[in-house]
Amino acid sequence: MTTFNISTRGQGLYEFTRDVRAWLAVQGDGDGLLTLFVRHTSCSLLIQENADPEVQTDLRNFFARLVPPTTDPSMSYLTHTYEGPDDMPAHIKAAMMPVSLSIPVQQGELALGTWQGIYLFEHRDQPHQRQVVAYLSH
Amino acid sequence: MTTFNISTRGQGLYEFTRDVRAWLAVQGDGDGLLTLFVRHTSCSLLIQENADPEVQTDLRNFFARLVPPTTDPSMSYLTHTYEGPDDMPAHIKAAMMPVSLSIPVQQGELALGTWQGIYLFEHRDQPHQRQVVAYLSH
Amino acid sequence: MTTFNISTRGQGLYEFTRDVRAWLAVQGDGDGLLTLFVRHTSCSLLIQENADPEVQTDLRNFFARLVPPTTDPSMSYLTHTYEGPDDMPAHIKAAMMPVSLSIPVQQGELALGTWQGIYLFEHRDQPHQRQVVAYLSH
Repeated sequence: MTTFNISTRGQGLYEFTRDVRAWLAVQGDGDGLLTLFVRHTSCSLLIQENADPEVQTDLRNFFARLVPPTTDPSMSYLTHTYEGPDDMPAHIKAAMMPVSLSIPVQQGELALGTWQGIYLFEHRDQPHQRQVVAYLSH
Repeated sequence: MTTFNISTRGQGLYEFTRDVRAWLAVQGDGDGLLTLFVRHTSCSLLIQENADPEVQTDLRNFFARLVPPTTDPSMSYLTHTYEGPDDMPAHIKAAMMPVSLSIPVQQGELALGTWQGIYLFEHRDQPHQRQVVAYLSH
Repeated sequence: MTTFNISTRGQGLYEFTRDVRAWLAVQGDGDGLLTLFVRHTSCSLLIQENADPEVQTDLRNFFARLVPPTTDPSMSYLTHTYEGPDDMPAHIKAAMMPVSLSIPVQQGELALGTWQGIYLFEHRDQPHQRQVVAYLSH
């Protein structure tokens, strides 16, 4: 078991596939299951395309439109607004995207597809320190 | 392995973190992985903020607007409507939010963050008995 | 560990519960945890109602309206468009629905509810070969 600490600087995707692979490399060669779990309710875990950075920009912009800040008139029915206009939308996005990911490990290697990277999706505007717990079971 | 039985009384979030912790307390002290799995297609599992109940109200209201009842004119293209106006929207919400959650267990304790609680999100209007299967692996 | 190969012919849900059960039947009788993981970023895994095929049609149509093709004027802000009008919407849907599923196995049987089936949800228009990795842990 380990914890990855990820520093974020506003809304968007932060890849940490390399950190996961580096940790896995010293865990042995067998088959297993890697679980990632994010210890927060205003960011998410995602597996997404790692080839074209435009995909990440588009993802951020889509969800910013689907769940706009509470200053947007369409969101005036929301009540949990005193932690900032990005707070309740962050909780909503955290409900729509994964808090945990389960990735099989084959002979010590992640079973990711060619274009799959592992990301933390930050939903808050301010910088945050995020913790992702990793557990390898067999 | 155990099953949590959760009684719901209409759409909304029902916390059962305490039940999970009570069961885990008699499973021993080691590291492991807790899996929760809900055996239904019209409710979801969520990990969300447990500090302010307004977050739960806002989540329910957001998803009720994103996926309104089939009586709403904007949903007139839906065909699976004979089990009630809340039925197909419930299936859609169940597709957008988790059916399973994976939570690492460290020395017998859930690796939840400070503000994280475990909820069943009921998407139907009528009272239901919901089953959540819990499995602890090592 | 095994890999299920699923051929898709356009957007929609493809059930493979039977393949999962057939593989599980030769893995022994104990308790365990089945993990399914899809090795792509433009399709999803879903557990959904398997009783009425209209549910599957409605799911496809809901998400096609929530995340329309990039040819739709409402999506003109998206930039990752050169792989076709269905490509970036596919990545967005893949962010909103599961890439991995965790299903407890009790005495060799999936702990699925009566109406639950396991589906691959294809988000692309063209035929694809999709790989789903299955891992059984104890």
